[in-house]
Amino acid sequence: MADPRFFAAAGPFTLGQLAEIAGASLSAGADVDRVIHDVAPLDTAADGQISFLDNRRYLDSFSASLAGACVLAKAHADRAPAGMALLFSEAPYLAFAKIARAFYPTPAVSAGIAATATVAASAKLAPGCRIDPGAVIGPGAQIGARCHIGPNAVIGDGVTMGEDCVVGAGASISHSLIGARAYIYAGARIGQDGFGFASGPNGHLRIPQLGRVIIGNDVEIGANSTIDRGAGPDTVIGDGCMIDNLVQIGHNVQMGRGCVIVSQVGISGSTKLGDYVVIGGQTGLAGHLNIGSGVRIAAKSGVHSNIPAGLEMAGIPAVPVREWRRQIARMVRMGKAKPAPDALGGRIDAAGDKVE
Amino acid sequence: MADPRFFAAAGPFTLGQLAEIAGASLSAGADVDRVIHDVAPLDTAADGQISFLDNRRYLDSFSASLAGACVLAKAHADRAPAGMALLFSEAPYLAFAKIARAFYPTPAVSAGIAATATVAASAKLAPGCRIDPGAVIGPGAQIGARCHIGPNAVIGDGVTMGEDCVVGAGASISHSLIGARAYIYAGARIGQDGFGFASGPNGHLRIPQLGRVIIGNDVEIGANSTIDRGAGPDTVIGDGCMIDNLVQIGHNVQMGRGCVIVSQVGISGSTKLGDYVVIGGQTGLAGHLNIGSGVRIAAKSGVHSNIPAGLEMAGIPAVPVREWRRQIARMVRMGKAKPAPDALGGRIDAAGDKVE
Amino acid sequence: MADPRFFAAAGPFTLGQLAEIAGASLSAGADVDRVIHDVAPLDTAADGQISFLDNRRYLDSFSASLAGACVLAKAHADRAPAGMALLFSEAPYLAFAKIARAFYPTPAVSAGIAATATVAASAKLAPGCRIDPGAVIGPGAQIGARCHIGPNAVIGDGVTMGEDCVVGAGASISHSLIGARAYIYAGARIGQDGFGFASGPNGHLRIPQLGRVIIGNDVEIGANSTIDRGAGPDTVIGDGCMIDNLVQIGHNVQMGRGCVIVSQVGISGSTKLGDYVVIGGQTGLAGHLNIGSGVRIAAKSGVHSNIPAGLEMAGIPAVPVREWRRQIARMVRMGKAKPAPDALGGRIDAAGDKVE
Repeated sequence: MADPRFFAAAGPFTLGQLAEIAGASLSAGADVDRVIHDVAPLDTAADGQISFLDNRRYLDSFSASLAGACVLAKAHADRAPAGMALLFSEAPYLAFAKIARAFYPTPAVSAGIAATATVAASAKLAPGCRIDPGAVIGPGAQIGARCHIGPNAVIGDGVTMGEDCVVGAGASISHSLIGARAYIYAGARIGQDGFGFASGPNGHLRIPQLGRVIIGNDVEIGANSTIDRGAGPDTVIGDGCMIDNLVQIGHNVQMGRGCVIVSQVGISGSTKLGDYVVIGGQTGLAGHLNIGSGVRIAAKSGVHSNIPAGLEMAGIPAVPVREWRRQIARMVRMGKAKPAPDALGGRIDAAGDKVE
Repeated sequence: MADPRFFAAAGPFTLGQLAEIAGASLSAGADVDRVIHDVAPLDTAADGQISFLDNRRYLDSFSASLAGACVLAKAHADRAPAGMALLFSEAPYLAFAKIARAFYPTPAVSAGIAATATVAASAKLAPGCRIDPGAVIGPGAQIGARCHIGPNAVIGDGVTMGEDCVVGAGASISHSLIGARAYIYAGARIGQDGFGFASGPNGHLRIPQLGRVIIGNDVEIGANSTIDRGAGPDTVIGDGCMIDNLVQIGHNVQMGRGCVIVSQVGISGSTKLGDYVVIGGQTGLAGHLNIGSGVRIAAKSGVHSNIPAGLEMAGIPAVPVREWRRQIARMVRMGKAKPAPDALGGRIDAAGDKVE
Repeated sequence: MADPRFFAAAGPFTLGQLAEIAGASLSAGADVDRVIHDVAPLDTAADGQISFLDNRRYLDSFSASLAGACVLAKAHADRAPAGMALLFSEAPYLAFAKIARAFYPTPAVSAGIAATATVAASAKLAPGCRIDPGAVIGPGAQIGARCHIGPNAVIGDGVTMGEDCVVGAGASISHSLIGARAYIYAGARIGQDGFGFASGPNGHLRIPQLGRVIIGNDVEIGANSTIDRGAGPDTVIGDGCMIDNLVQIGHNVQMGRGCVIVSQVGISGSTKLGDYVVIGGQTGLAGHLNIGSGVRIAAKSGVHSNIPAGLEMAGIPAVPVREWRRQIARMVRMGKAKPAPDALGGRIDAAGDKVE
């Protein structure tokens, strides 16, 4: 059970209720009235708890689990331990997410402005907002209903924000228009000047960055990530994008809907992403590129050119994943190959080039 | 036009004034008295606005632009749409920067100390400083004239700072001596202990980090970047250096004048950079290296050894760019090559080594 | 001498005292009563100061040093300048660390709660804590004796922390149980939701993250690093781990004792590290991996599979260091090789594959 110091659980629910919540089908013979009290990981779950199996790596944990119920794909049913109720779903993780959200609903925001918060007279707060201690809201800012501005967070002059947004501790936002239900994690920095300067004989001359950051609905920005405002055009993050921690988004970047940007990725200025692009951790994209919808880029890649929609890419520079696998296979073999004697008296390695 | 909620425009200016500001020459027949009201990107600019062309990728946008005027190199004049006034410059981006700064001058700092700021009795603020809500200035700190310390920023004990510095929201600085006109972005962390410890049989023993961070004039430190103070010597950032977001600078690093360090670069302890070194995003430098003046290192490189002045390097490990291009060309071919039949009955790939 | 604006020195000590503190042996003829006033780097040290030599790169600085005394391995004694007292140690850096800590002991925390701090009525502070201006401590938090919570730091509801912890400026912690003597640097983010969501036809659905962050004793978390709480299991950082700046630790990661994680490393969710694992800067680890105790991974590597205990790995994907060295040697040669004429009229490069 989740630590009650940090989490408040709802429930219990019957298996029948959970199947409905999850859009899952119960295994034959499962008792629809059986009561489930909580969610738990496979290896610690007990009889009254429900877990999930989504990654084949955990099949053994599944078979050994004491969970009373489990959400999984039908294909793995034969590995289930006796007595476990099974909830079948073609998308077990999504189904489990719905169950977990039922057990642990987002707590309602308790409205109020802390005594040590600073809210400018010209800022407008819609009803139901919670402004935590030390938070600062600048002149002309407009905050939607039920937003929660965390401790010591800073909302700059003129920033607008839709309903039900959360801004984590110490985050800061300026020059931005933000949609509803944004979740800005602690320490994120949104709207500062991009890295824009012109270099000349007397050094670097900063160029005014006159755009904004436009963030759609249902967007997450991870802890300590940075999103620079546009230089002239805007920086745009589409609806439903999920951005992890320590990500850098340069000025003028435009991102479509539902993109997933994993931790420590960097996207250089003016690059455009289509919808549902997925970028693995620590990957870097050069500037002024077009990345088509549905593109998937593996972790630690380096992208130097445009990518048509739908491709899976990897490597530095990024190539189609199949090509990257061949590159890697050969690199690995090169590393294993022992240099062999050469008829000419020198030494030739297995790839045919001289060993100096 | 830039969003007036966030930006205050000056102007208008005549073409003649703008040419003078930019050090540019007007195209033959352009009307020196024509009035320009604003700057704008090529693709959204209208008749009364001025734009710029600096990257050949945007030649089509240039030809289709409705901008009334444009700063560009003479070589591209033939691509200009009819009726557009042209301002010729050999450094169009630098020239445009001067124009943009004329339209959007840095607003004067409005002096004052917010009621919720904490300024130690022994701290000294020169005239004209603005200390925002929640900012904290420690004992013995000395802040130059017209500095703007942002909301919830923290200036540690004894820190000194020259005139006209800006410290962004939530940034923190300790153990540092900072020159004039520094721009420290939100969430930057300057002056904390370096990663210094000695490992022994009983674990890791932290070693006191007794140096400082010395920052010259006209330096920018990006959002959420970190600069550790020296271990004994100082960490030194020279005049005019531009450091982007999420950069890590280790203890004892010394950087000359005008270096440009792009986002997510990491520079390990005790490495020295000359003047005007440029390091692309996500590159890492090992410790105790000497990187000569004018060196340029491509993004995502890994530098393990000294680099003489003036070289352009790329790759992991970094090699001269020409060699890196050859490496990459071969890697890419390796990935494309289909394995071919082998006379011996096995299969041989194009590089001559066995396919297992 | 360390800048007295920032550091308070103890001492002086005699050579005999220092040898005892360091567990080092004095060179023959050294005067045990000679007085040493401070530590200093080799190249700036003067007669009354002690330095150290641990890296062969600095042998020339050592030979030219004016330091009155130096800690070093006996093997380098012949390079010592005349008149320098030598303290021999098999672990010179560790020995010097002990000396430096004697000269610069950690100052005692001066207890007190700043007027602008916000401490919830239900939070419990043990005696001797210092709570700086703007710091926020949530309901139910428990802070051990002599903890120092820095300016504008945020300790979330229910967080517990052992004795003698330091939390830097603007750092934020939630959903965490932290041991004694933790040093959480400025801007670190600990305990936020992991990057957990299930993707479906209607976008990405966030899944409640129900675990915590459990941090052992004597742990350091660097500036602006991020540690996500567990999704169901906990995220665990073992005793004595040293984590540098800008590191990302994903949900459910488990780390044994004494691990060293250098700057800008990313460890993906559910990966487990044994004890004393060392990971070089900018390296990334995929999720759900097992990394054995004592594994060392070079900087900028990409780890996609499990690593047995004790191996040294490097590269993308990471391979044993010896293999990686061969890979690199061939890559470098590929880059240097000039394409050569081919008997068949085409051109063949030195690796045997066609040059298109």
